[in-house]
Amino acid sequence: MSDVVPSSDSSAYLPAYLAAERLRVEPALERVVSQLEAELEADIGAAVRHGVMGGGKRLRPILCATAYRASGGTADGLIYPLAVSLELIHAYSLMHDDLPCMDDAELRRGRPTTHVDHGEDVTARAGAALIPAAALQALSSAAELECGPEGGVDIARELMEAAGAGGMVGGQWLDLKGEGEALGLDGLNGLYERKTGALLMSALVVGGLGAGATDDVVEALRRYGGSIGLAFQIADDLLDATQSVETLGKRPSDVELAKSTYVGLYGLKEARDRARAHVDDALASLSSAGIDAPALKALALFVVERDN
Amino acid sequence: MSDVVPSSDSSAYLPAYLAAERLRVEPALERVVSQLEAELEADIGAAVRHGVMGGGKRLRPILCATAYRASGGTADGLIYPLAVSLELIHAYSLMHDDLPCMDDAELRRGRPTTHVDHGEDVTARAGAALIPAAALQALSSAAELECGPEGGVDIARELMEAAGAGGMVGGQWLDLKGEGEALGLDGLNGLYERKTGALLMSALVVGGLGAGATDDVVEALRRYGGSIGLAFQIADDLLDATQSVETLGKRPSDVELAKSTYVGLYGLKEARDRARAHVDDALASLSSAGIDAPALKALALFVVERDN
Repeated sequence: MSDVVPSSDSSAYLPAYLAAERLRVEPALERVVSQLEAELEADIGAAVRHGVMGGGKRLRPILCATAYRASGGTADGLIYPLAVSLELIHAYSLMHDDLPCMDDAELRRGRPTTHVDHGEDVTARAGAALIPAAALQALSSAAELECGPEGGVDIARELMEAAGAGGMVGGQWLDLKGEGEALGLDGLNGLYERKTGALLMSALVVGGLGAGATDDVVEALRRYGGSIGLAFQIADDLLDATQSVETLGKRPSDVELAKSTYVGLYGLKEARDRARAHVDDALASLSSAGIDAPALKALALFVVERDN
Repeated sequence: MSDVVPSSDSSAYLPAYLAAERLRVEPALERVVSQLEAELEADIGAAVRHGVMGGGKRLRPILCATAYRASGGTADGLIYPLAVSLELIHAYSLMHDDLPCMDDAELRRGRPTTHVDHGEDVTARAGAALIPAAALQALSSAAELECGPEGGVDIARELMEAAGAGGMVGGQWLDLKGEGEALGLDGLNGLYERKTGALLMSALVVGGLGAGATDDVVEALRRYGGSIGLAFQIADDLLDATQSVETLGKRPSDVELAKSTYVGLYGLKEARDRARAHVDDALASLSSAGIDAPALKALALFVVERDN
């Protein structure tokens, strides 16, 4: 596993890096899902598998593992069991967001959403079961890393804060409420910081904490995560405005629902410029703490250049 | 705060004990709910308040605080912030159980269920937000007790296991699936152990862990919790079969839904005898570890003698 990359050619390097990382994330996720299936009734276990193992970029665990190495973590094979705790929270949020009583989405990543195949009641329970599963996964796997069990407490707190009232729950709700009303830039940034940003930030912070990084490094990673979170969400708006259902694997819902978006507020060009500015902020955060991590730089660029 | 009680007169003593304990649980819960309201959007915060502060016996936090003192814990004022983490998980499970896609219940504790007043989407999110809130509450409050921060990891694990796949999620689902089919005694015990028992057991275990009790004491508390959990659920079946809506504060749903119950399997008298036998098991577990706690003995009797 190498993070060293010719910085002049990040566009060629990153796809291979992401593919290699996914090959390490998937088995760690598979182990967690298999264990959950063994504990749960068959119906709920099947919904957990549908919701967690249905593809996706695995961006949060990859960011976590990358931040871990960028912070000096060396127990490379042991970071993935911790990193996937982020993906469990992400999967919970998607499963619940898609429910009929929420966004009522029928398609995600090019296939039926979990409740379409497994029912609303089973999906609601399966999603909720992923929250304690993530906490348990974080507590047990952090103990194996540089941070030790004490660091595991900080990591579990970080993860649960991102998953809870101060993090994505509030943000998800703002997102629903934003349908049909103009939020303005402050409102939109606040929404995105919580909805997407809370968990992206935590992915970085958890990686840094796992390596036992200094407070300075951890806070720089948090700022980097906040900036790429905003860039990521603007890029989502751009994709919704410009891509087809086939490329996205889901219906471009924002325009239909008349949600406030960056594209709606600023138009395509200005939205692209703003996304790039957030990427620059992210790179500046890394420099400020002396973090020299080509993979994190390339990932910051990736979030605005991806096509799905 | 005294646990000392004339053992010959537990029936007169326990109501006063429970009332005094509730007076200590409620302010600790109020503090958590106020903090959540400050973090959440107003609509979700209101649903959290509805679901958490709507009365109830507060049996789980009371069991936790009582087990803490029975295990030698002396930081009496500091156990309630930990103890209420159990009630947050309990409230989450009730809020989600009552949802239209689950039991579709409109009445609980004599008033409308949370989703009736606050909507299904808001209630689903508010309930899910209580899981990370409980984990955070446990991690922060355990650090103040005899067990210290390291003990907090064990406590958080215990709580999340009870809330998750190996605990109540599986059990709730078995309960739904049990509608209309005969489970038999093994199936029914398995269901009750997970549905009610997982969290009751954890209430006792968390109290013991908080006090830094020995493994022997903690495991005796777990067995005590398992036994009173079964007794509690049989008592619920008896109440459903014999009480009016007015006394229960909810519709006696089990008969309507033709669920398997102890009363259905064994009739009233045999079910009562079985509940009593579980209480005897609970008392024997205490004796086996030399736990001399009149309040725990009285509580074991209470779970089968309560009228709602």
